[in-house]
Amino acid sequence: MFPQTSATRSQLDPLHQVSAPVERWHNGERSATRDELAVEEPLELRTRSTSAQGAASLETLAVILRTPGHDQELAAGFLYSEGLLASHDELAELRPGVDADGLPSDNLLDVLPGSGVNLIQRIQESGYTRRFAVNASCGICGKNTVEAACAVLPPVHGDAVVVAPETLYSLPEQLRAQQRVFAATGGLHAAGLFDTAGHLLGLREDIGRHNAVDKLVGRALLDGALPLADRLLLVSGRLSFEIVLKAWTAGIPLVAAVSAPSSLAVDLAMAGGITLVGFLRGENANVYTHPERVRR
Amino acid sequence: MFPQTSATRSQLDPLHQVSAPVERWHNGERSATRDELAVEEPLELRTRSTSAQGAASLETLAVILRTPGHDQELAAGFLYSEGLLASHDELAELRPGVDADGLPSDNLLDVLPGSGVNLIQRIQESGYTRRFAVNASCGICGKNTVEAACAVLPPVHGDAVVVAPETLYSLPEQLRAQQRVFAATGGLHAAGLFDTAGHLLGLREDIGRHNAVDKLVGRALLDGALPLADRLLLVSGRLSFEIVLKAWTAGIPLVAAVSAPSSLAVDLAMAGGITLVGFLRGENANVYTHPERVRR
Repeated sequence: MFPQTSATRSQLDPLHQVSAPVERWHNGERSATRDELAVEEPLELRTRSTSAQGAASLETLAVILRTPGHDQELAAGFLYSEGLLASHDELAELRPGVDADGLPSDNLLDVLPGSGVNLIQRIQESGYTRRFAVNASCGICGKNTVEAACAVLPPVHGDAVVVAPETLYSLPEQLRAQQRVFAATGGLHAAGLFDTAGHLLGLREDIGRHNAVDKLVGRALLDGALPLADRLLLVSGRLSFEIVLKAWTAGIPLVAAVSAPSSLAVDLAMAGGITLVGFLRGENANVYTHPERVRR
Repeated sequence: MFPQTSATRSQLDPLHQVSAPVERWHNGERSATRDELAVEEPLELRTRSTSAQGAASLETLAVILRTPGHDQELAAGFLYSEGLLASHDELAELRPGVDADGLPSDNLLDVLPGSGVNLIQRIQESGYTRRFAVNASCGICGKNTVEAACAVLPPVHGDAVVVAPETLYSLPEQLRAQQRVFAATGGLHAAGLFDTAGHLLGLREDIGRHNAVDKLVGRALLDGALPLADRLLLVSGRLSFEIVLKAWTAGIPLVAAVSAPSSLAVDLAMAGGITLVGFLRGENANVYTHPERVRR
């Protein structure tokens, strides 16, 4: 389902990093040098809105600060993770946008929903608030947030998924080996999708960890490959509520990270039937929830 | 302006971390243990809204996933950073909220704006989009985003601010020494505010780096201490557009981080007159913009 990694990388590098002048103070000595920066640019998602008078116009759905590249995947994954698209069928097309002067823009993407789908209406109904993070009837807290997610999302499948600890140990090094851009800029997060034997199937990098996950999930949505019931997700850095929610929405049964999970990430993974692994470093793996999937 | 750090810490610890069971695979051996997790909980900000019929109700302004503690600071800093509050005068009170059953909730905060301030209207006018990240008249890109910020925010003052490289070198260790919670959970970001001699004035920790900055800025707002024209900001981790925008809004002339900045963070700092320092590690400091402030 994923394109070859080598081809992907060669397309991405110029989008991912730029060179900038730096005044470097090292051991008290000043020198002029240059540094590679990870690129961050806004991506505006728009959709067609029809007024009461029947006039159509493009309205902004969201603006995502992201590292350019794989923008259609990012858009698809973002809309799916936010609950604005339920499946591939609800998406007719993601079309590169043109600006007010009629010129094509790399930072505009027009979302053409399928028949009968009104994205503006869906956003208005969801209010200003984060998905599942409000439950007005019984107050707001982590517990209610998790219950609200349970009421909407089915538990993940993946009962048959079993991963050896040695397989887990091998994942971060595979991610790092492929993360050439990170090596240059130090500024990009990565997310990798693996099969249960530990083979890397796809890698996405972004200034935002959540964007890297959305790009992987979006690729799967566009390929009709959701839910990802026999896949493992590894993210660089830490595990928050938001990352686990994206994984649950995509049906991924095991989520791992190099660093620590939050309390709400653990609570959500427990409720969703997801195996949550943190501090995956060298020959160490801390399994916080559903440890039955990690066995020899 | 900030309470003593020792008093702050002793209040925060129980809010910051919880203990959870872990199945640990270490060198291929499985053991049952426990781990400290950084707490992540939703905070709902509400404000009073009046219907056309004159009935008042509480409406959600935002839901922030955060580490509990310093919630009033977080709310004040968030509203200020988002451009929803222009000054302390526009805020009458931040009041702990009660839920639908009339019970007090640690995760509800009611924002009572000053006379003539309608926060719901301000949110509706700003649309669904990120602040400054849309500029419909001339297309969307990093350059336009920066220009949009320039059109609204004055450049920071701080022409007289000069910081020795040795002072910069000393900041990360001061932050780490105070970050006791991070040492336990590995899961919290930190932001520190310093004077130009390198004295730590305030430290805030949160699961979200942007929240830690909002807590510092909110404290200053509540104390009537904005703009922070003779202060330095240090954040753990990386520097994104969002962090620099928050610093600019608060008038902070020098922003430093342990890791890399993004391209848009550098562009924004350049436009705002902010000195941006990255890779502040040991005796190294990369100064990306306005290096004239780093001198012996």
